[in-house]
Amino acid sequence: MGLFTKDIATLQDLYVHQLQDIYYAEQQITKALPKMIEKATDPQLKQGFETHLRETEGQIERLKRVFSLEGLEEKGVTCPAIDGIIKEANETAGDVADKAVLDAALTAAAQAVEHYEISRYGTLIAWAKQLGRSECAAILAETLAEEKATDEKLTQLAESRINASAELAEA
Amino acid sequence: MGLFTKDIATLQDLYVHQLQDIYYAEQQITKALPKMIEKATDPQLKQGFETHLRETEGQIERLKRVFSLEGLEEKGVTCPAIDGIIKEANETAGDVADKAVLDAALTAAAQAVEHYEISRYGTLIAWAKQLGRSECAAILAETLAEEKATDEKLTQLAESRINASAELAEA
Repeated sequence: MGLFTKDIATLQDLYVHQLQDIYYAEQQITKALPKMIEKATDPQLKQGFETHLRETEGQIERLKRVFSLEGLEEKGVTCPAIDGIIKEANETAGDVADKAVLDAALTAAAQAVEHYEISRYGTLIAWAKQLGRSECAAILAETLAEEKATDEKLTQLAESRINASAELAEA
Repeated sequence: MGLFTKDIATLQDLYVHQLQDIYYAEQQITKALPKMIEKATDPQLKQGFETHLRETEGQIERLKRVFSLEGLEEKGVTCPAIDGIIKEANETAGDVADKAVLDAALTAAAQAVEHYEISRYGTLIAWAKQLGRSECAAILAETLAEEKATDEKLTQLAESRINASAELAEA
């Protein structure tokens, strides 16, 4: 989007802009997850990240279907939000000395990513419905359900073992 | 946190770092909300942002109580995630020509902020409980309930009127 023009005139324009934003975000997430898989120590957390990497690849394919249904070229626009969330995750992870504490930090970072996506897909679904794009709304809803399930799994993992292990770390 | 030292050794350290992160984030939100109030056209949306600004000020007071209970100085650390979310909100809002479409964009931006906070307070509460800080967990839970209620109100507002008004904008 241009710095000197107001390119978004309609809800349809805003919807397309948001689709491009989340398309970029999902691609950044596929780049961030392999590093998180490498850093994670807890086997369930590592496996959870691996599963989510495959899911994210499927979510990108769904976005391609939505672009195609809209008659649009697949295109991303830089998304400062996801860049900031990933930057913060990397900075915090880089500051953590203990492996179990790092697992807790990685879990929290992944949940921040999930919540960003939950927010964006929720909005996209509402806009798609408003615009009468029921097929696109249904495709996006499949992804939203996956993001919510991933967040829930991470909460369970954190509360059942990750946080307890992290608490045992000694200064 | 230092670039060349690993300052986070324990879950307690990570919890304090996250408290400082959300303390900074809440302050950035109090700076962003007046601009959103100014830009919003829908009276309910404008009023909702005004209410949330007062709530955010109360949330900062709660964080000060938590710092005090932890025997810590109130201190923020730069939070690239909230900076990115707010930057994205400003960039997108700057690209929108129509006032009703801008309301839809502002609502979506506010929900991205709420979801970041929901994620962070959820994590902080879990860590506070793990560390046996039940009083701090209870204080943080009051804020989490407010953030969830705000997000829900924004969803209702978007789906009941904001998105429908935005759809009427003409290119």
